[in-house]
Order: sequence, then C-alpha cells, then structure tokens
Amino acid sequence: MIHETTLRVRYGEVDRMGVVYHANYLPYFEQGRTEFLRALGTTYREVEASGLLLVVADAGLKFLRPAGYDDLLRVRTRLSELSGVRMLFEYEVDRPLDGVRIATGHTTLAACDLDGRPIRLPDALRERLQTIVEPTAPKPGKNPVSGAVQGRAS
Amino acid sequence: MIHETTLRVRYGEVDRMGVVYHANYLPYFEQGRTEFLRALGTTYREVEASGLLLVVADAGLKFLRPAGYDDLLRVRTRLSELSGVRMLFEYEVDRPLDGVRIATGHTTLAACDLDGRPIRLPDALRERLQTIVEPTAPKPGKNPVSGAVQGRAS
Amino acid sequence: MIHETTLRVRYGEVDRMGVVYHANYLPYFEQGRTEFLRALGTTYREVEASGLLLVVADAGLKFLRPAGYDDLLRVRTRLSELSGVRMLFEYEVDRPLDGVRIATGHTTLAACDLDGRPIRLPDALRERLQTIVEPTAPKPGKNPVSGAVQGRAS
Amino acid sequence: MIHETTLRVRYGEVDRMGVVYHANYLPYFEQGRTEFLRALGTTYREVEASGLLLVVADAGLKFLRPAGYDDLLRVRTRLSELSGVRMLFEYEVDRPLDGVRIATGHTTLAACDLDGRPIRLPDALRERLQTIVEPTAPKPGKNPVSGAVQGRAS
Repeated sequence: MIHETTLRVRYGEVDRMGVVYHANYLPYFEQGRTEFLRALGTTYREVEASGLLLVVADAGLKFLRPAGYDDLLRVRTRLSELSGVRMLFEYEVDRPLDGVRIATGHTTLAACDLDGRPIRLPDALRERLQTIVEPTAPKPGKNPVSGAVQGRAS
Repeated sequence: MIHETTLRVRYGEVDRMGVVYHANYLPYFEQGRTEFLRALGTTYREVEASGLLLVVADAGLKFLRPAGYDDLLRVRTRLSELSGVRMLFEYEVDRPLDGVRIATGHTTLAACDLDGRPIRLPDALRERLQTIVEPTAPKPGKNPVSGAVQGRAS
Repeated sequence: MIHETTLRVRYGEVDRMGVVYHANYLPYFEQGRTEFLRALGTTYREVEASGLLLVVADAGLKFLRPAGYDDLLRVRTRLSELSGVRMLFEYEVDRPLDGVRIATGHTTLAACDLDGRPIRLPDALRERLQTIVEPTAPKPGKNPVSGAVQGRAS
Repeated sequence: MIHETTLRVRYGEVDRMGVVYHANYLPYFEQGRTEFLRALGTTYREVEASGLLLVVADAGLKFLRPAGYDDLLRVRTRLSELSGVRMLFEYEVDRPLDGVRIATGHTTLAACDLDGRPIRLPDALRERLQTIVEPTAPKPGKNPVSGAVQGRAS
C-alpha cells in the first residue's frame, strides 16, 4: 500500500528564500504516516492510548526542488520494512499541479512503552501492518544497495 | 575546528511525550552552523547579502536519548567535508548537565545563486573554510566506510 | 460572510500538557483567512504577487478550552471591519465532534507596499471585500462596547 | 522588577517577507517569562513538577516594526497584575543594536491543577511574586484606562 495525502503549505512554513523551510518536511512526513494509519482503520492517537509509543529513531531527507507558499503538496507514504520492534516509513513529496518531485525521506520508528523502553509491536498490529509492507523498489539504472535507505540498513 | 554552542529547550518545542519533538533538531543544527560561521568571523546573513545562498540539500538525524523542556543542550558542529559547491556539516547534541548524548546528524549545503542555481563557493570563503575542515573520525570497532555519512557520500 | 475551514491538529503542535500549544492558534487563524480569501476568488499569494502585503499589525487570542492531538478543528473567519488601509478579521475555533468552543481571536492587517510602507487597499479589492463585511454581533447580556475587539477599536 | 533576556532570531522563524513571522513572538514572550521565573530562583519546570500548571488564558500582541533574521532581540518582561488565580505578564521586545521597539504584548496565565481545573496559586509562590509586581505605567498623554491591557481587565 502506498498512501497519499495532500496538504497546503502555510505562510509561516516558508522561509525568507520564499521556500518551505527544510525542517517542516518532518511534520509533513508525520502527517503522511498519521493518515496512513488512519487509512488502515486505526489512529496513532489510539495506538498511544493503548500504551504503545512509536518513537522516531532516525530520519533522513533529500530536498530536490523548492516548494512555495500555498502550494498544494502530495505526500506518498509507504511502510517499507517491519520488524518486531521497528518500522521503516518512506515518503515522497511532490506537487501535483506540475508533477515536480519536491523531497523524499524516511523515518524509522521504534516501539516503546510509556516509559520509553523498547518493546515488541503487539501481534495484532504487526500482523495487520505486515500485509501492507511495500518494499522500496530499486531505482532503475542504480545499484539497488546504494540508495540512502538501503545503505542505512546495512 | 569543532564549534560549540548551547541553547535551552523551549516549551513549545516539546511534544506530548514530554520530549523535544524530533523536527526541532533541524533548527538546533542550524543554530549550530550559524554560530559556527559567526565564530569564523562572518555571518550567514552577510553570506546571503553577498548573493550566495547555502541551501540544505539533504539531512540525516539519529535520535539517541530524549531531551526535555528547559534542558540546556550543547550543539557541537564541524565542517567535515568541503568541495567546490557543497559543504557537509555534522552535529552532535548532548546535555552537559549529565553528559548524555541526545542526537547526532548532518546536513549537506549546496551553494546557489539567488535564483537557486548551483554555483561554486567563492574562493575567499572556500579557502577560509578549508583550513578548518574536521573530517569525521572513524568510530572505533566500526568499518570506517559503513556509517551513515560516509555511506551517503558513496 | 462567515467562512469555515477545518484542520487537523498535528503531533508537533501539541505541548507536554497534551494540548495545542497556544502560539499555534495564530497559524490556524492565518489558515482561516487564507481560505477566506480563496473562497472570494483570489488568493493571498496573488495579492502579494500584485505588490500588496497584508501585514499583521496586532492580534488577540482567548483560549477557552484545550484541544488535543489529532482533533479536527473548525475555524470560522469573518472580516468584521474594513477601512482604506486596515482589515479586522475575527476567528472562532471549535471542535465539531463535540461542539466545544476552543478559542477566539482577531488580527488586524495593514496594507503595505513591498517596502513595508502603509498604502491604501486597491479599490477593486476593497469594494469586493466591502460586500462581505460581517460586523461582530454584540453578545447577548453583554455591553456591546465592552468586548476585547470593540474596546480595541475605540 | 523588569526582567531582560535576549535571543537571536532563527532562520526558520522568518517568513518570506524576510521578517519574523508574527506567531513566533508568543514563544519569545514565553522565553521572557521562563527567564523571569528563573531569575526569581525557581523554574517553570519545577512549578509544573509541583503539580501547578500556568495555562495561557489569553494573549495580545502589537507589532510595531519588523525584526529580521539573526537580529539580537531583547525581551523585557514584567508581572503587572497578580490575583489569587491569575498572573498578567507584559512584554516589550526591542532590538538593542539600534534601539528600535519591535513588539509589545501580554499574556494572562491561569493557575490550574494537572487536570486543568482552576486552583489558587500556592501562598508561598504568590507572596514571592507579590513583592515584584510592576504595574503598567500609564502612557503619557493617554487615558490610563483605555489601553488594551487595562481594558481587558474591566
């Protein structure tokens, strides 16, 4: 499953170069995985209420082209790896109006209890997630182990 | 040169888990390199006024331990790679009070003109920067080319 | 005209009390007036591109009840006063799910040129806006001149 | 007591007009009152740890002149009113380099327990605060009850 959501760039998210300030892509990614979970029939709010925190363990971002104020952006989110304790989400942000790819990235989430100690993902959630894992496609003409995400996992 | 600056975590930078929201480390890193440049005798504001933009091309972050509201954090910044058009900055964030390492990361900055086109770093700036490049030390017991930053450059 | 738009509270917008951090209501208000203008058939991006800045001159906020992560909020926006150089927007934020009123506020916007000098609103824009001014209704059982917004204008 | 603290404007806090985005003054004010409390010998973190929340009930801001990226700003904070359950803080932001006044504002904080219910300020804290209340000086040539803050209290 590759989930899509859209958002509109807010005025305060744009810096004095007139483009989205780079740190704001992490909340955009977060909105992507929030809506990804909602599309599965759960919400991250419910996940936390059940005593499970999904803590961001690492993140990576590539900025390809600038986006501007009031642009409508699309965030494509996939769960590309899943283990007993970790989830790797990957994101692509583009601008549907002109098809320009804006940014890509990933975040690794680690399952923790409310005290921040690592725990295993509950079986029910993991089994549901397992059915929709969408591994990263190797990029055409590229060594399939050279990308940022694969390299990160080595 | 490894430059150090400190900052205090603001209330609004902490999320409902009671820890610094992960996206806020990118502005912390930015504060690190802003003060790094100031320590060199220039400012990023002057750099931009001269017609040179340093655009964030990619970023990576590892979150090691949580930081909380009102924590005093130290950001250590080094320029670890420099080419004609790109600069790789690396960051370490720790909490001096108890010595806990909180996060590490990097950003690659690309030199652009005011229209966003790639340009070469001016010779004067590049020569000054060249004298203070501080390459990443290989981590003990680790393959020196396997880390996130080195892998990224391959 | 009273315009309505909805938004969903993001994770990073909530503080360690578990409620929306108070400063984030100003971007919510801004989203309200951005969509207000779009509903009129223009966009603030186009307004700026024409050489007219609408600068926030003052703002006021009352926080009635907390909103939480992932809440769907509704922002009601009205243009309640209009002069040759200023616009007063008023906002109400509630949570449609349970009908709770969350916050109210206002911002005064001043027309400026690209150098920040006060200018008159262009006639065409002002005439269009004039037709949809929605003055603040006096609150029942309250002295109609005692509220924050009316008092501000005295 | 009028407390002073300084801060430097971050890149991401500036919008595409090249000036501090208006919502960012609320965190600046918060930094002002955080350091105000620290100067008194306590911290807001300790206050919260004791079970007392100081919730922002309302806020007002006037934007006088723009501030830019990397500007060093000074925040002057005073506690201008204190009751059993509420504190009124007032703020002035200026730029020491050229003495320009940038913004003024206020926030009213309400004492609450950890469930958000209004409570009385603890006697020890209130007595300590009482000694440093600094009422707003009436502005020369202005009716002393016509200002935003005084009007608010009526």
